[in-house]
Amino acid sequence: MAEEISRPFDLLNSIVGKSAMVKLKGNMQLRGILRAFDQHMNLVLEDADELKDDQKVARIGTVIVRGDNILYVSP
Amino acid sequence: MAEEISRPFDLLNSIVGKSAMVKLKGNMQLRGILRAFDQHMNLVLEDADELKDDQKVARIGTVIVRGDNILYVSP
Amino acid sequence: MAEEISRPFDLLNSIVGKSAMVKLKGNMQLRGILRAFDQHMNLVLEDADELKDDQKVARIGTVIVRGDNILYVSP
Amino acid sequence: MAEEISRPFDLLNSIVGKSAMVKLKGNMQLRGILRAFDQHMNLVLEDADELKDDQKVARIGTVIVRGDNILYVSP
Amino acid sequence: MAEEISRPFDLLNSIVGKSAMVKLKGNMQLRGILRAFDQHMNLVLEDADELKDDQKVARIGTVIVRGDNILYVSP
Amino acid sequence: MAEEISRPFDLLNSIVGKSAMVKLKGNMQLRGILRAFDQHMNLVLEDADELKDDQKVARIGTVIVRGDNILYVSP
Amino acid sequence: MAEEISRPFDLLNSIVGKSAMVKLKGNMQLRGILRAFDQHMNLVLEDADELKDDQKVARIGTVIVRGDNILYVSP
Repeated sequence: MAEEISRPFDLLNSIVGKSAMVKLKGNMQLRGILRAFDQHMNLVLEDADELKDDQKVARIGTVIVRGDNILYVSP
Repeated sequence: MAEEISRPFDLLNSIVGKSAMVKLKGNMQLRGILRAFDQHMNLVLEDADELKDDQKVARIGTVIVRGDNILYVSP
Repeated sequence: MAEEISRPFDLLNSIVGKSAMVKLKGNMQLRGILRAFDQHMNLVLEDADELKDDQKVARIGTVIVRGDNILYVSP
Repeated sequence: MAEEISRPFDLLNSIVGKSAMVKLKGNMQLRGILRAFDQHMNLVLEDADELKDDQKVARIGTVIVRGDNILYVSP
Repeated sequence: MAEEISRPFDLLNSIVGKSAMVKLKGNMQLRGILRAFDQHMNLVLEDADELKDDQKVARIGTVIVRGDNILYVSP
Repeated sequence: MAEEISRPFDLLNSIVGKSAMVKLKGNMQLRGILRAFDQHMNLVLEDADELKDDQKVARIGTVIVRGDNILYVSP
Repeated sequence: MAEEISRPFDLLNSIVGKSAMVKLKGNMQLRGILRAFDQHMNLVLEDADELKDDQKVARIGTVIVRGDNILYVSP
């Protein structure tokens, strides 16, 4: 990790414009390009797919994900 | 995505008047025209249907959706 | 929708005195006349019935519904 | 409903001293005399019974019910 | 109820030093002597037992119970 | 209980440096030496074991437990 | 524990740069190098793996974990 990450939101900031995997409660996963986020960890993904056990199960496209229900976000 | 989206609520703003798919906790989905929203992500949809596995299961019409229970919103 | 709805609570306001269907967590539905609401989306319904799969299962009458557990409200 | 109910807590206020049915998360019901409440919808019931499918299953007596877990309250 | 109970926490106050039954989410019950409480409904019980269907299943002794997960408290 | 316990956090304070049993949501139990806590009931335990039905199932060692998910703490 | 731990977040601070095991709700575990945290217990882990019953089930890499859904963190 080349950038200096001193707080968790720094990591979010460093992956804007790049691919991110978002794990939600209820065993749901979304993968897409992180476009935007706010201080509640609400996210915007573009070109997003819904995954199950790492397999694509649905095409979502652009999506706003509510931060409350996020377990983790990984670049 | 032609508009500039710098925060997640910008995306909500850009789809007012257009069709939106709203995924709720408990595997419920609503699809309708986004009419209004507030800072809690409470939404108003018009001409909304309830979907299950992307199939229409009920006609809802106009509906206020509580933001707390939203997983994601997609145009 | 004749009235102008610019925020979600405007929709609640427009249906005071009219029939509303309230979907709660845990697959519970109430239908009654919306009498009052507050900023937490706590609601008062009159002449309310409890429904299951859109069938009346119990007579409730007047009821205060806690906003926290509401999924959506539809006129 | 003879009294004017302009906010949900007005309904609670109007039933102090009278019988109330309280539906909680987890399919639990309590019926008793509403003695007191606060702004979190915490309630005190007296002479309360626990019900299941509208049948009395246990005698509770006086009880303070935490507002967080209330689905609805009906006089 | 001899004392005047005008707010729910008055009831808690009136049972300090006496036996209380605490019902928690997840069908857990504790019975013990209420020793202390705070404004979050966090409680201290002494000589507490864990009950299941009103039968003692475990000896707990002194315990601090987190208010968040309480359904009701009964003297 | 020799010390005077007038608020629930007084009990936590009195058991710092001593063994504590922590019951979490989801039927998980931890037992260890309470080292530190804060006003959210976040705890630090040392020499902690994870228990199931009061049997040790795993060695955890030092651990920070998030207060939100605690049901109760017992010395 | 050589360092003085007077508050739970002191423990988090003492393990920055070291391996941490994070237990989440829903029986999920992550193990990785703790890189950063904030006051909500949001964490950044690097070189993280997802574990199930202490067995590695998936390679995650860098990840931001939302504090809300954490049960405990152990060095």
